[in-house]
Amino acid sequence: EQSGMNRVQCQAQDVENKTFLVGNKFQLDDVVEAQQFDRNILSAIFEVAREMEKIEKNSPGSQILKGFLMATLFYEPSTRTRLSFESAMKRLGGEVLTTENAREFSSAAKGETLEDTIRTVEGYSDIIVMRHFESGAARRAAVTASIPVINAGDGPGQHPTQALLDVYTIEREIGKLDGIKVGLVGDLANGRTVRSLAYLLSKYQDVKIYFVAPEVVKMKDDIKDYLTSKGLDWEESDDLMEVASKCDVVYQTRIQRERFGERIDLYQEAQGKYIVDRAVLHAMQEHAVIMHPLPRLDEITVDVDVDKRAAYFRQAKNGLYIRMALLKLLLVGW
Amino acid sequence: EQSGMNRVQCQAQDVENKTFLVGNKFQLDDVVEAQQFDRNILSAIFEVAREMEKIEKNSPGSQILKGFLMATLFYEPSTRTRLSFESAMKRLGGEVLTTENAREFSSAAKGETLEDTIRTVEGYSDIIVMRHFESGAARRAAVTASIPVINAGDGPGQHPTQALLDVYTIEREIGKLDGIKVGLVGDLANGRTVRSLAYLLSKYQDVKIYFVAPEVVKMKDDIKDYLTSKGLDWEESDDLMEVASKCDVVYQTRIQRERFGERIDLYQEAQGKYIVDRAVLHAMQEHAVIMHPLPRLDEITVDVDVDKRAAYFRQAKNGLYIRMALLKLLLVGW
Amino acid sequence: EQSGMNRVQCQAQDVENKTFLVGNKFQLDDVVEAQQFDRNILSAIFEVAREMEKIEKNSPGSQILKGFLMATLFYEPSTRTRLSFESAMKRLGGEVLTTENAREFSSAAKGETLEDTIRTVEGYSDIIVMRHFESGAARRAAVTASIPVINAGDGPGQHPTQALLDVYTIEREIGKLDGIKVGLVGDLANGRTVRSLAYLLSKYQDVKIYFVAPEVVKMKDDIKDYLTSKGLDWEESDDLMEVASKCDVVYQTRIQRERFGERIDLYQEAQGKYIVDRAVLHAMQEHAVIMHPLPRLDEITVDVDVDKRAAYFRQAKNGLYIRMALLKLLLVGW
Repeated sequence: EQSGMNRVQCQAQDVENKTFLVGNKFQLDDVVEAQQFDRNILSAIFEVAREMEKIEKNSPGSQILKGFLMATLFYEPSTRTRLSFESAMKRLGGEVLTTENAREFSSAAKGETLEDTIRTVEGYSDIIVMRHFESGAARRAAVTASIPVINAGDGPGQHPTQALLDVYTIEREIGKLDGIKVGLVGDLANGRTVRSLAYLLSKYQDVKIYFVAPEVVKMKDDIKDYLTSKGLDWEESDDLMEVASKCDVVYQTRIQRERFGERIDLYQEAQGKYIVDRAVLHAMQEHAVIMHPLPRLDEITVDVDVDKRAAYFRQAKNGLYIRMALLKLLLVGW
Repeated sequence: EQSGMNRVQCQAQDVENKTFLVGNKFQLDDVVEAQQFDRNILSAIFEVAREMEKIEKNSPGSQILKGFLMATLFYEPSTRTRLSFESAMKRLGGEVLTTENAREFSSAAKGETLEDTIRTVEGYSDIIVMRHFESGAARRAAVTASIPVINAGDGPGQHPTQALLDVYTIEREIGKLDGIKVGLVGDLANGRTVRSLAYLLSKYQDVKIYFVAPEVVKMKDDIKDYLTSKGLDWEESDDLMEVASKCDVVYQTRIQRERFGERIDLYQEAQGKYIVDRAVLHAMQEHAVIMHPLPRLDEITVDVDVDKRAAYFRQAKNGLYIRMALLKLLLVGW
Repeated sequence: EQSGMNRVQCQAQDVENKTFLVGNKFQLDDVVEAQQFDRNILSAIFEVAREMEKIEKNSPGSQILKGFLMATLFYEPSTRTRLSFESAMKRLGGEVLTTENAREFSSAAKGETLEDTIRTVEGYSDIIVMRHFESGAARRAAVTASIPVINAGDGPGQHPTQALLDVYTIEREIGKLDGIKVGLVGDLANGRTVRSLAYLLSKYQDVKIYFVAPEVVKMKDDIKDYLTSKGLDWEESDDLMEVASKCDVVYQTRIQRERFGERIDLYQEAQGKYIVDRAVLHAMQEHAVIMHPLPRLDEITVDVDVDKRAAYFRQAKNGLYIRMALLKLLLVGW
């Protein structure tokens, strides 16, 4: 671990003020948004995640976080994310306080502010993992709390641990992040996952992104403009097969029905337009992989699952390692 | 433990293919349905349950399952069953991930298949205890998962750990299973408990079963035919007092109001017809016991509780020992 | 601990029969209501709470309650209280079974009595922390259970651990309980918190209480009569500023909107009448403190929070130490 970290040259000036250097390592205080990480910090976190992978596989009953208590303060349910964090904490010997009905706690119920709730919960725990329905809630919590806060998704805003696990998965599967070609497919307008991923990929060299989306859910201009400003090469395409043949990563996403209201016809048209099936798989290169943030409906057909290039369940598992790494870094440091 | 197990002669040919012999012991991979157990396996599980009883009473802080993580994946709430499993896991030093709103995870919510959910959850845990609203869901989960799955009830289908604890309780209370007389009382048409119990009792010698049920909820022909085909002696009776005087076990059940829809008159008639009270108790033999899967309403009067023959709370407690035994067997073996 | 306890001279005759002396210490079996504690027992509990404070701060991973299992049986949700108890148990190395939907267990759902539920749950755990919607439910549970029961609030009845933490906070902040002046402000008619606090304060010498409440939510006669009968000096006032200048403790409470039905005008009038703001703070003595059971709305303005006399978040934290102390006393004794 020591020697691995010594190779990291952190550019502290790029990093928001809550993350700062200790020697040539950085100090992580909260995880609020994907933007707080530069590529060196990402690389350092990924090294810890690799260690966590070994611990999870070989050391049942690790005691690294023994005596630490995590509060999962979820203002809206997200069983998948919650279980992933709670598993991460328990795999390292830590303990968990769970609440999935935190709204009962909150202004919605009796009028208490988020800040007051945080001041109470920080008295009961050592770290807070918060899911909230309002964009910016995680930052407010982090500013208030004297203990670390991890954003497990705040409304349409950020879901930084998902973004980290996506980039980590690409590095684990492809072996590099510079020079890769990534196809982002599906609902690019509403998915915060693909937006965050595009943002993080802009930190790497010679990345090419292809956007493949039905007309009604195309990638928005803000991200395109951002990528252009960073010198990242991107293009739009309506030919999934051709994109699949070129890419290292085909990142498929679910079309979110709830975005279409009563226009079920538009939903169905969008939903059926770009399906990853065995024909797409056949077009892909041998080393390439298919990713998906899950849950999936039928935008990837189940007969794809058996192919080793179907990386989405490994990707879900990587979420465990990333969360183990962040919990370790925030609670006991390097 | 070793010597106890050596006496067991498993008849592997009777057992479904997921349970197989290792030496003269069997290997348990999943617990899906009561039918997967023959009497030798039942006997072996019961020996482990007896050990668990000693551990629970004498070894606070047992570490047998330290480092193991159980996910309780409940698609419908069943607090009693969930607490029993979670207590079993924690009594052995294991840890638990809880979800009682697993439907949010599922096809009902965003369209994810049970199989995809299982593939995600198996990445976070070492064993899955699943409660589901659909018959057959547990088998689908067991086939998908690479870790053990225990069926904690799947709809109108199976609830095998309840069936095991019922048989274990009879053996603990009466001292034998061959040659016993059992009265099944109450709602025999809808209760999966009594159906599974009747099924398991057919594996023993010289068992006699009496069915005592209101007309509208009589035992169905499929079970009667099955018992006949196995050579088990059974008869129907409407004289609870006489049956009580003959039996080793009076197994009372609750009439389920929800089965009667708007016909409250029929419900009330059925509900009041066979009550186990002090008069019934008086008719019973000294060594006999009263069982009930709980919860009860007034089909057993509370003045019966003080009698030592009231075995239903001991029966509930036996559920803990059976679940401890199954968790141990599935996670660390004999 | 030993020497501290030796100074306590318990007056066992004042104490209900479930709490009795062992040597010159007392044996605590259940925590049902504030009235069960006399001042010597309170003092002894507070000494243990002080020890717990040191353990929480200095001994991550305390194992005092290792191997013990607490069931939080909540018939209505109260995330704040539940997390406080669960944190207390886990800070001492104990384990927790959680249920926040215990009604599903109960008569409301299938008609099971509370007594039957308790008999089942006591088989799965070593101590029960119960929240219930019916006054008197905690006593019924305590009478039934063979393991300790702590009342975490039963309807409009008791919430004894809140009363204990309030008195503990006054002693910690002011340094004494005899001879203090306390202003109770806000909703004195409906708040069980201030009623219990007034009750407990009557056990100390030369205490003076000021009641400052809007007309519609004034303190009721039963408590006033009780205080008079105990020789405690009290008066009513409508001058918060003057009361604040005299008191050691200003105990503010929330006006509960739900008590006013459709009379929102009356609610708003009551809600705005007595606000603790910087002007009130300015009137207060340097050693005095502001307390509040939380959650607060705007009856204390947020600009008060930064003042060291704002004791309400320390008060919430003291709830953790009191609950740690009670769990230790009930499970392993002194």
